[in-house]
Amino acid sequence: MKKIGIVMGSASDLPTVRKAFDVLKEYGVPFEAHIFSAHRTPEEARDFALGARAAGFGAIIAAAGMAAHLAGAIAANTTLPVIGIPCKSTNLDGMDALLATVQMPSGIPVATVAIDGAKNAALLAIQILSLTEEELAKKLDEARRIAAAEILKKDKELADELAKL
Amino acid sequence: MKKIGIVMGSASDLPTVRKAFDVLKEYGVPFEAHIFSAHRTPEEARDFALGARAAGFGAIIAAAGMAAHLAGAIAANTTLPVIGIPCKSTNLDGMDALLATVQMPSGIPVATVAIDGAKNAALLAIQILSLTEEELAKKLDEARRIAAAEILKKDKELADELAKL
Amino acid sequence: MKKIGIVMGSASDLPTVRKAFDVLKEYGVPFEAHIFSAHRTPEEARDFALGARAAGFGAIIAAAGMAAHLAGAIAANTTLPVIGIPCKSTNLDGMDALLATVQMPSGIPVATVAIDGAKNAALLAIQILSLTEEELAKKLDEARRIAAAEILKKDKELADELAKL
Amino acid sequence: MKKIGIVMGSASDLPTVRKAFDVLKEYGVPFEAHIFSAHRTPEEARDFALGARAAGFGAIIAAAGMAAHLAGAIAANTTLPVIGIPCKSTNLDGMDALLATVQMPSGIPVATVAIDGAKNAALLAIQILSLTEEELAKKLDEARRIAAAEILKKDKELADELAKL
Amino acid sequence: MKKIGIVMGSASDLPTVRKAFDVLKEYGVPFEAHIFSAHRTPEEARDFALGARAAGFGAIIAAAGMAAHLAGAIAANTTLPVIGIPCKSTNLDGMDALLATVQMPSGIPVATVAIDGAKNAALLAIQILSLTEEELAKKLDEARRIAAAEILKKDKELADELAKL
Amino acid sequence: MKKIGIVMGSASDLPTVRKAFDVLKEYGVPFEAHIFSAHRTPEEARDFALGARAAGFGAIIAAAGMAAHLAGAIAANTTLPVIGIPCKSTNLDGMDALLATVQMPSGIPVATVAIDGAKNAALLAIQILSLTEEELAKKLDEARRIAAAEILKKDKELADELAKL
Amino acid sequence: MKKIGIVMGSASDLPTVRKAFDVLKEYGVPFEAHIFSAHRTPEEARDFALGARAAGFGAIIAAAGMAAHLAGAIAANTTLPVIGIPCKSTNLDGMDALLATVQMPSGIPVATVAIDGAKNAALLAIQILSLTEEELAKKLDEARRIAAAEILKKDKELADELAKL
Amino acid sequence: MKKIGIVMGSASDLPTVRKAFDVLKEYGVPFEAHIFSAHRTPEEARDFALGARAAGFGAIIAAAGMAAHLAGAIAANTTLPVIGIPCKSTNLDGMDALLATVQMPSGIPVATVAIDGAKNAALLAIQILSLTEEELAKKLDEARRIAAAEILKKDKELADELAKL
Repeated sequence: MKKIGIVMGSASDLPTVRKAFDVLKEYGVPFEAHIFSAHRTPEEARDFALGARAAGFGAIIAAAGMAAHLAGAIAANTTLPVIGIPCKSTNLDGMDALLATVQMPSGIPVATVAIDGAKNAALLAIQILSLTEEELAKKLDEARRIAAAEILKKDKELADELAKL
Repeated sequence: MKKIGIVMGSASDLPTVRKAFDVLKEYGVPFEAHIFSAHRTPEEARDFALGARAAGFGAIIAAAGMAAHLAGAIAANTTLPVIGIPCKSTNLDGMDALLATVQMPSGIPVATVAIDGAKNAALLAIQILSLTEEELAKKLDEARRIAAAEILKKDKELADELAKL
Repeated sequence: MKKIGIVMGSASDLPTVRKAFDVLKEYGVPFEAHIFSAHRTPEEARDFALGARAAGFGAIIAAAGMAAHLAGAIAANTTLPVIGIPCKSTNLDGMDALLATVQMPSGIPVATVAIDGAKNAALLAIQILSLTEEELAKKLDEARRIAAAEILKKDKELADELAKL
Repeated sequence: MKKIGIVMGSASDLPTVRKAFDVLKEYGVPFEAHIFSAHRTPEEARDFALGARAAGFGAIIAAAGMAAHLAGAIAANTTLPVIGIPCKSTNLDGMDALLATVQMPSGIPVATVAIDGAKNAALLAIQILSLTEEELAKKLDEARRIAAAEILKKDKELADELAKL
Repeated sequence: MKKIGIVMGSASDLPTVRKAFDVLKEYGVPFEAHIFSAHRTPEEARDFALGARAAGFGAIIAAAGMAAHLAGAIAANTTLPVIGIPCKSTNLDGMDALLATVQMPSGIPVATVAIDGAKNAALLAIQILSLTEEELAKKLDEARRIAAAEILKKDKELADELAKL
Repeated sequence: MKKIGIVMGSASDLPTVRKAFDVLKEYGVPFEAHIFSAHRTPEEARDFALGARAAGFGAIIAAAGMAAHLAGAIAANTTLPVIGIPCKSTNLDGMDALLATVQMPSGIPVATVAIDGAKNAALLAIQILSLTEEELAKKLDEARRIAAAEILKKDKELADELAKL
Repeated sequence: MKKIGIVMGSASDLPTVRKAFDVLKEYGVPFEAHIFSAHRTPEEARDFALGARAAGFGAIIAAAGMAAHLAGAIAANTTLPVIGIPCKSTNLDGMDALLATVQMPSGIPVATVAIDGAKNAALLAIQILSLTEEELAKKLDEARRIAAAEILKKDKELADELAKL
Repeated sequence: MKKIGIVMGSASDLPTVRKAFDVLKEYGVPFEAHIFSAHRTPEEARDFALGARAAGFGAIIAAAGMAAHLAGAIAANTTLPVIGIPCKSTNLDGMDALLATVQMPSGIPVATVAIDGAKNAALLAIQILSLTEEELAKKLDEARRIAAAEILKKDKELADELAKL
């Protein structure tokens, strides 16, 4: 199975990004994670991207805040799918990171998920791998069933509560 | 090779979406396109999504404007990667469609590209297929080289122009 | 009297939505509430909407956050009035949910209230029922009188306080 | 059948609001329209609202731009359902009118539709009347079917076009 | 001397508005304050505005949050200068109140100050009265001198602190 | 009668500001207009403000776009009421000018009107003068009556048009 | 005298950037301009930045639109002052480029000017050089005087026009 | 070596601005700091700017919040490079200060850094001085190396942590 690469722009993004680690572990998908800044360690970010396809990666998740260039910098150096997580920083509620991640110019896409959407970034990476990994497709389906069941369980609890009124 | 599905919420999105058709044709990637509205033909949108993996699709591109629910509605019914194109409508410059497409809840990701970013949506779909289609990976690399050469040609022209001053 | 349906996209919306429960109980309006996600339990949301008119509902209130598709997904499957409550989530102060709820395309309206405006959603539903339930019209008038009296009481208290200066 | 009241804040809103006239005529719903400004003719706006229920109105649509107070001013003086259309003006793309219309305080709801969403405002009014007018419910269903058929016709045309490639 | 009228839309605005009371007291300007809601007590708000000039008011300050219509509702019923304070509510950081207050249509101005800018609203009212009350003009000048001196005192403290480094 | 000062930051603001000239002429209010930039001719702007009260001005209107500092720069140098017109420039729809004009710090108010709201700026200045000029108060009332009559005339025309259907 | 480097992300930015060329020529400041994309020719952009100080550049101006990473990518590879021009693209009025340019993380500043502010970018570069080039300081002062004189000339024309009324 | 001037609009900006002090001290760059308000002490702000070049300053950093005019007011009175720090205040998350600082009109640039970006403002000032102070250029390079090493150290720690799983 191909690996998923995860890159974040700062150690401060780690609490957000750990949710992606958890999902990948849960699905048994191998991953490698790095703290590489588009601005402070541009060489490392670039080299990681340039070598990623040959190194057996199937997608790269990049998380950054503010003028969030990391996903774009990775995407500029690989033709693997790059998934961007805009991270909320102190100000502007993540809108700066969202626009800096999603509004990529023609030719260099970044698959952007919601602000701080690390779980969905991991799921998207797994969906990509699932095209050839039938087992992952099954697990994704199963997870959807579990999520639905959890909601319906809460729906039932609410019905029970309201019935008592 | 897996096919790419393209769904748009309204015939008015077609001029934007045609850029995705062009890219897919250029890369020789088979695709199927539909006009299905999340709100006006919800059954068709759902059925398309539910059957998409079995029908041989590898990713679905969904384009919609305003309260752009189409990508999310598709994503709710498949575990294939779903790529969302937020389309600019008459008002708000596409910000409504961007937020309605990208801010998906945990569990159901949509890989969002820039407002009206149909070309990048197609490229992202091709990048996903390129994990198993080596030929596509080569073409993507080649396209990057061509794009770089075009820019450098324009850089040269600018240098020549400035040299004459 | 027709019933009011209340649907929320996640159990996390329940604290907000309970304010609608309180209002409906206060007015003696029967209601039924569900936790159905547009994305995680799309079938249940759809089936509820499809059967709502026949089941005796007079309006459906739908509350959701982020890319808030629930009200739209309900509205796509019923011609009953659908009232949307955009819920504030962690980021963007509810602006994402507001735009995803209110900016519906032609043909499928959602009657949107303020961000987290659960009380007003319930009142709007009661106003709709009041067209044929004269008793509700009277109660709505009475509530307006009480609200006005409360404000005027506070106005009086302020006058008294300022008179002492 | 109850009538629908339509109020707009300025004659300049008339081109937008005419779409609501068209829908109401199409459904055979009686309506009465006025140009009353919340700021320039506050008495007329108020008196219309105060007398609306007794005069046989079932809902009031209010359209205004900029600091769009009209819907709120009407809602303050009636307990009928009030539907607000935020109109785009010269600047800010209608965002000012949207927030001024939808962000109503507790107690006085305004059922807000999309910016310039006059057609949907009329449909929402018809949906409200349809609770007691079975004929309208049927027409609404029929309109949904027609809208779906139109989309599917365009979907078919697109399929035909793509098949020729 | 003419009086200043202060109206707020809700008792919850009182902590913000008290800063205006303090300034007016400091300058010895008579004022009268009311809690009148544009939506919940529209008659009282209107009557206050209609009678304000005859009652000896020189300006009216109106404070409200969310879809802040109060200043506009007052301005619609008087030709006295009306000063609007947009109040921050739970969501949107006061942007809704700002736009609902400042974006008034031609013919009915509202003199808008900063979000939660109660102190400046009072100062603006005093500036208006100062056209005929020379004493107030002197006090305003004096206050400017004091404010400048305070800043320069802090500037001096900073200089002292930095000199010690 | 006191004069009204009008200052604009650039000759490009003149088409917007002329609407204020027209209103002042219509009311017979003397005014003096200047093109003074807060940034390019700061001395002239300052000197005008410093001398304005002594020169017989009763209020100063300041119009500027982008990082619109002119109203604030005037307000910093006079205790006369300063009315700010945020002007729309090429980008951002006037939001930059609105925030730069209205969000003044404590101590230095600017009475801000709507984006490009030159007519209302003039009316506000006249309202201020009307505290001592009874004739102006009458004219303001009369203008309100005329504006109302115009709206009601259009309302009548609409009624006639609809009656013919 | 040190040279100014100018880099733009796309040939489509050239019409905007030419205003910077004009200013630099007017001041007799040597410059070199390139079309290098942060995403499509990342190596060229990087190499230019890495070598810029040694090559005799004193500042680099970088212009780009959308998710405008160019200025940041340059700044990541040089400790020369980097001046960012956020360029307006088709959508969002340049707000995306502004946030992507200005919201740089700690350690890597970009000196951001207004949206499409190419003239000011050039002036800022000249101001930087003026620290050691006295002639430039004089020219900058002279330009300020000329700009002030132009405004005062227009002020005079306006005074003349108004005097004729 | 030239000095750096630092001006802030209020003592409340001091905690933010101290980060700039720290950086300048760390690099051994002489600086002078003042609390001067564009609105409350306009003369002092102006005089400081007018005399800054002659007094041996090489750049001026100006920090202010809300309608942040300070940087522009300084820039209007000097042709030295002026660096603006938009400071976040109670409301609007610093967006008001950002737009009021960066959107300067042609002719008077302000080099704007991120909201609350005091550290980067100091670094930008040092970069400007580094054109003639080789020692500073070396320290800037060294700081980049240290920052990169810190990130790579954290990257290593993350790798170690993940290796243990």
